Amino acid sequence: MPRINGDRLWADIVTTARFGGTDKGGVTRLTLTEEDRQVRDWFVGECRSLGCTIDVDGIGNIFATYPGEDPSMPPIAVGSHLDTQPQGGRFDGVLGVLAGVELIRTLKETGTVLRHGLTVVNWTNEEGSRFSPAMMGSGVFSGASCLEAIEALTDRDGTTVKTALETIGYRGEIPVGHVGFAAYVELHIEQGPLLEAAATEIGIVTGVQGVRWFDVSITGTEAHAGSTPMAQRDDALVAASEIVLAVRDIARRHSPGVGTTGFATVGPNSRNVVPGTVQLQIDMRHPSEAGLSQMQAALEQAVAAIDAEIGLKHIWSKQPVVFEPATVEAVRASAEALSYSATEVVSGAGHDAAHIAGICPTAMIFVPSKDGLSHNEAEYSSPEECARGTDVLLQTVLQIDLK
Amino acid sequence: MPRINGDRLWADIVTTARFGGTDKGGVTRLTLTEEDRQVRDWFVGECRSLGCTIDVDGIGNIFATYPGEDPSMPPIAVGSHLDTQPQGGRFDGVLGVLAGVELIRTLKETGTVLRHGLTVVNWTNEEGSRFSPAMMGSGVFSGASCLEAIEALTDRDGTTVKTALETIGYRGEIPVGHVGFAAYVELHIEQGPLLEAAATEIGIVTGVQGVRWFDVSITGTEAHAGSTPMAQRDDALVAASEIVLAVRDIARRHSPGVGTTGFATVGPNSRNVVPGTVQLQIDMRHPSEAGLSQMQAALEQAVAAIDAEIGLKHIWSKQPVVFEPATVEAVRASAEALSYSATEVVSGAGHDAAHIAGICPTAMIFVPSKDGLSHNEAEYSSPEECARGTDVLLQTVLQIDLK
Repeated sequence: MPRINGDRLWADIVTTARFGGTDKGGVTRLTLTEEDRQVRDWFVGECRSLGCTIDVDGIGNIFATYPGEDPSMPPIAVGSHLDTQPQGGRFDGVLGVLAGVELIRTLKETGTVLRHGLTVVNWTNEEGSRFSPAMMGSGVFSGASCLEAIEALTDRDGTTVKTALETIGYRGEIPVGHVGFAAYVELHIEQGPLLEAAATEIGIVTGVQGVRWFDVSITGTEAHAGSTPMAQRDDALVAASEIVLAVRDIARRHSPGVGTTGFATVGPNSRNVVPGTVQLQIDMRHPSEAGLSQMQAALEQAVAAIDAEIGLKHIWSKQPVVFEPATVEAVRASAEALSYSATEVVSGAGHDAAHIAGICPTAMIFVPSKDGLSHNEAEYSSPEECARGTDVLLQTVLQIDLK
Repeated sequence: MPRINGDRLWADIVTTARFGGTDKGGVTRLTLTEEDRQVRDWFVGECRSLGCTIDVDGIGNIFATYPGEDPSMPPIAVGSHLDTQPQGGRFDGVLGVLAGVELIRTLKETGTVLRHGLTVVNWTNEEGSRFSPAMMGSGVFSGASCLEAIEALTDRDGTTVKTALETIGYRGEIPVGHVGFAAYVELHIEQGPLLEAAATEIGIVTGVQGVRWFDVSITGTEAHAGSTPMAQRDDALVAASEIVLAVRDIARRHSPGVGTTGFATVGPNSRNVVPGTVQLQIDMRHPSEAGLSQMQAALEQAVAAIDAEIGLKHIWSKQPVVFEPATVEAVRASAEALSYSATEVVSGAGHDAAHIAGICPTAMIFVPSKDGLSHNEAEYSSPEECARGTDVLLQTVLQIDLK
């Protein structure tokens, strides 16, 4: 069984962390910035030197393909994203791309020949921080959104995606969606606390939760905190508090769903004035569409039962994704063959794999995140954890290659 | 029975509303500003023309005294404050001072002679908006605070109270606390909804609620809204919501106490991040010190029962004030003599009378506030309501004068 070189992988993690590295050991490398150009150039240079052909499509997705025996077969793809959050970590997305590079090196040095080509992909703008929406490159590639509209989107300074791509020289010639894959497997850090808590080495990711976002606008009556009796109040913050607790309770009743009120503002926000207005932003997730619909119905019911003027708007959705069982099985069998402890998980966060699952058999592999941290400069997975995930990725590719 | 002239009183309300008048029909006349100087000069001029002696003390309190028969007797005082909130109303404080002026005019034109002098007081900085604390002038007069410390306080621009007094020419020669009163009666708008809701014309104010202010600081754990299971969250906004509802419930259980969480901020305040920190500001009031202590104990208990890291700080108090029963009785008897509907109320808001009650027999008279509004440009009490309150004030003074 060929094994990857964990030290060499870790050295690449350290190297790439320099592009946009922060004082606290994290990375600020927003999509299509100078730092992003630097890491893209490094990636292209490494892969070229390993004998890959490089394709760049119109939305800046980079495809580095290591040839297989049979050019008539669609390539097997691995990868993730090289862009980060502001003050993000060194591993989120980066691990999946560098693991692909390490796979190529390992195939090369062990003389292992695949039937399929192996394509390592760097998807443009997975984070959605500089330009919204997130998972932009994989979204256009899979047909979830259309290039012309996406190209015209702007950042806070008014720069378009198209201009930003041209500025860093990654507005490629290849038409977007130019190739079909035999399968797509993405290695990623968990960004949550489950694997660490369970002392489990590998997450066999069976799918991605669906999401629904709600905006809540509560209108009460501003009043004097001293002279207004309790019975005559219309307190928008009291109503909001009932909603926050309802969101928590609804999530608990629809396990393994989650519900969060992450954003709240109060008006006029003065100690001795009964609050007249509150705005809330809610994020609900569940692995199944039925679960999401039940949670939404419960939220609507909870809001209706509260005695205040409340506007509830469902502003965005993403449907749950279930990964193709045979590809998930290949991950499971690989972890078993390597004698790594493994457990099935559903991804709580969104990933490029969620888009790609719509167009080819797809799976993900998770490694533990220390303290469950991500989008945080302290984000960490150990060299051993990264190496184990990459070995599972290699074995999974080898298994898929046999089919 | 001598009666005041309601039209003349209303004309003064209209006249004084011009000093700092806003487009929406309210008043912005912060303490010791140019607008405050204008209204003070108007007040002094009116009272002088009516035969009053004018005294101004070191903290800018103005005393306009209409002589009585017996100069050896301490004067009876009425009054309130001429400063307003930013975008405040035309009646809050102003009514009580203008009613005093109207009393003097009425005594004069009816040839009514009192035994005691009648002093109309304008207290400096009741609102506490430009300079904190509120009820500043009456606080120094009554000995609740000391002049030297108060003079040195600054506004947001760094201007001291002392400089501001000198700038408008109202840093008087008279030592603060220079006179004792036989009694003090303050006419004021209710600033709450009770009288209007009960269709009652006069509030016989028996005292002022005590207040306790608490600051709450909640520390949870910021986390990814998608990938963090409900059971592993430490959500600061959920904990905060439990406290907001506890404050409401505690107030309901300690009627007629009130409790308000008026201020809340959330960090990082992002839809898909579990909140890590929340700051709350709480205002609790009750007519009795025992009630306040029970409410505080209940709040401490509620906070301790919530499973989060919560800092609760008791940052300020004001003890309840009970007005002298004979003076309150004079108000009640006056309303009855005038055949006005009247009911006993406890003031929910703070007033200068709360300080003066510490040094002489004191009472207050309320008139209704439309929609309970105050600290609001739409603040309103009708000409008839203002006139009724002023007639009760006159009768109350006449009753006290007989003792």
